[in-house]
Amino acid sequence: MQRVSVGLAGRSYEILIGPDLLRRAAEFIAPLAPTHIALVTSATVNDLYAERVRNALSGLGPLMTIVLPDGEAHKNWSSVSKILDALVEGGADRKSLVVALGGGVVGDVAGFAASIFMRGIRFVQMPTTLLAQVDSSVGGKTGINHERGKNLIGAFHQPQVVISDTSTLKTLPSRELSAGLAEILKHGLLADCKYFEQVVHDLPALRACAPDALGRAIAGSCEIKAGIVTRDERETGERALLNLGHTFGHAIEAMTGYTRWLHGEAVGCGLVLAADLSVRVGLLERAAIGPIETAVQAAGLPARIEGLSLERAIESMRGDKKSEAGAIRFILLEHIGRAVQRTVPDAALRATLAAGGYA
Amino acid sequence: MQRVSVGLAGRSYEILIGPDLLRRAAEFIAPLAPTHIALVTSATVNDLYAERVRNALSGLGPLMTIVLPDGEAHKNWSSVSKILDALVEGGADRKSLVVALGGGVVGDVAGFAASIFMRGIRFVQMPTTLLAQVDSSVGGKTGINHERGKNLIGAFHQPQVVISDTSTLKTLPSRELSAGLAEILKHGLLADCKYFEQVVHDLPALRACAPDALGRAIAGSCEIKAGIVTRDERETGERALLNLGHTFGHAIEAMTGYTRWLHGEAVGCGLVLAADLSVRVGLLERAAIGPIETAVQAAGLPARIEGLSLERAIESMRGDKKSEAGAIRFILLEHIGRAVQRTVPDAALRATLAAGGYA
Repeated sequence: MQRVSVGLAGRSYEILIGPDLLRRAAEFIAPLAPTHIALVTSATVNDLYAERVRNALSGLGPLMTIVLPDGEAHKNWSSVSKILDALVEGGADRKSLVVALGGGVVGDVAGFAASIFMRGIRFVQMPTTLLAQVDSSVGGKTGINHERGKNLIGAFHQPQVVISDTSTLKTLPSRELSAGLAEILKHGLLADCKYFEQVVHDLPALRACAPDALGRAIAGSCEIKAGIVTRDERETGERALLNLGHTFGHAIEAMTGYTRWLHGEAVGCGLVLAADLSVRVGLLERAAIGPIETAVQAAGLPARIEGLSLERAIESMRGDKKSEAGAIRFILLEHIGRAVQRTVPDAALRATLAAGGYA
Repeated sequence: MQRVSVGLAGRSYEILIGPDLLRRAAEFIAPLAPTHIALVTSATVNDLYAERVRNALSGLGPLMTIVLPDGEAHKNWSSVSKILDALVEGGADRKSLVVALGGGVVGDVAGFAASIFMRGIRFVQMPTTLLAQVDSSVGGKTGINHERGKNLIGAFHQPQVVISDTSTLKTLPSRELSAGLAEILKHGLLADCKYFEQVVHDLPALRACAPDALGRAIAGSCEIKAGIVTRDERETGERALLNLGHTFGHAIEAMTGYTRWLHGEAVGCGLVLAADLSVRVGLLERAAIGPIETAVQAAGLPARIEGLSLERAIESMRGDKKSEAGAIRFILLEHIGRAVQRTVPDAALRATLAAGGYA
């Protein structure tokens, strides 16, 4: 088992990474001495792993299970309300604990419910997707979608501990595994060239769910993200660098109705577009693009998505939550392992989109 | 104008207290340089004061008004959702500002909406009731009710500044003015004997809305509460003392369906019951009860409410949010100006309730 510490004043926690950790859950949760446990999960994950967790935690007192419907469409107030109702009905108090077992949606919704129940009770994350293990497990972002935009409603609420059982990744569809690899590649690109090269070398082993490669890649990603979040918890500066590939990615998701491409797939393509834009504004050497594109493809991600509307893409990026007064702030690469935040000339952006197959 | 500082690391703010401050609102809000202002108010306060605020802020950029229905019944998700929708529709961003103009419900709902929009944007309070000026203006508690209990859903979110215009109290119904006096008396009882005596002396002037007496009483109460909240922001210890009279008060409200008595009226009666219980467990001298009862009556509050059910009262108190595993923690008086937290023998509680007219 590997441990990564996320150091936030007064609210530091550990991420535990390794095979078969769900069976050992009591070991990590007993010290929290919860009065009640509310296990929140999704329909699919409930069938696969909830019983295992319930058995592991059975000695720790009253436990209730709340099963949310699968999918991003249910990342809404109705799901939060379902959790809050169950907490109230179950007699939960300020010492109760919410445990989120599942992917990013479950973690975001359950964490948000925990953050607003009695003005904040504790929660534990048990992410079961690669994306959740390397991304939403670090940083304390929780929340739900608004009809008009993703993640518009939420809170910063740090978990007590994150238990990343890499064995759960064996049941993950390969597209979703690749989607997680996109964030792993992103972390290497923006912060650590050596880590990026190691991950690229390990890609076949990662796609085959080899435990050692997974442990190394997940711990490395969490360390990079934890370092950034520790220095900038509230996203006032450096944390924005984690949006590498995301401005393009969000636009791809929005233009395709959030159904055609997974978030990680859109980000994979976004990484290539961000690299291209970095070259056009004179930050990155052209020679760096090849390895990035190759890595994205080797991870099983689309390096190029044809046929999207160039004008709609720009419009979508202007409306992004991270934009201020309509100015798009891009995260660009100076070299592999170093990212910066910039606005860019309109012509450069248009050239990148055109070269990327937008029309 | 008087100023009280609420010192919280990184999130300190000032409470400004004085006559006719709403007309000067721009002076206090301009330094925040908001991109948009969302003015949230209630139907009654909208008619009385919203135009005044809109005129004052007209030079500061786009301003939208969100009017909530009057009353505690609307302290729910539907009102929060109305604010969030308006923020999204109005193109609000992370630099936008929510301004809460009204009583405690408006402040709690608008503050909570601000705390979860884009994971937290800034807000300013303009409390227009005495209760809100001395109670919810300090401490950053925001939230809504759940069908099964008050304030079960919420967040800690500190305002940027609180603008307490004492002129608005002239239009406050006298019952509501008295309800605010209950919290003022409470602050004196639990923390400062001299302040308590001054308030008792000023009661006739306070009930007549004399500006000097109001400024002195409000500033004094805010200072007492600010001191406690600064030392215990998350209510892990000392902050619980602010619940003096509230365990009894909440039970009175719950048993009478939240319609017969105002919160402050129930607290007024609760102060007398807490004093009686303090005597029965040997903490407080019997001679202290007379002055407390007299003060409650002179404030226009009920010192005694006849005919409530003793068993239902105990049941209600056991279910209170502040109870843990069914044990009721009371705030009791050692003398006027000093409170402590205690559990009490069941017999003493029953004797207090019986003597207080419960059957």
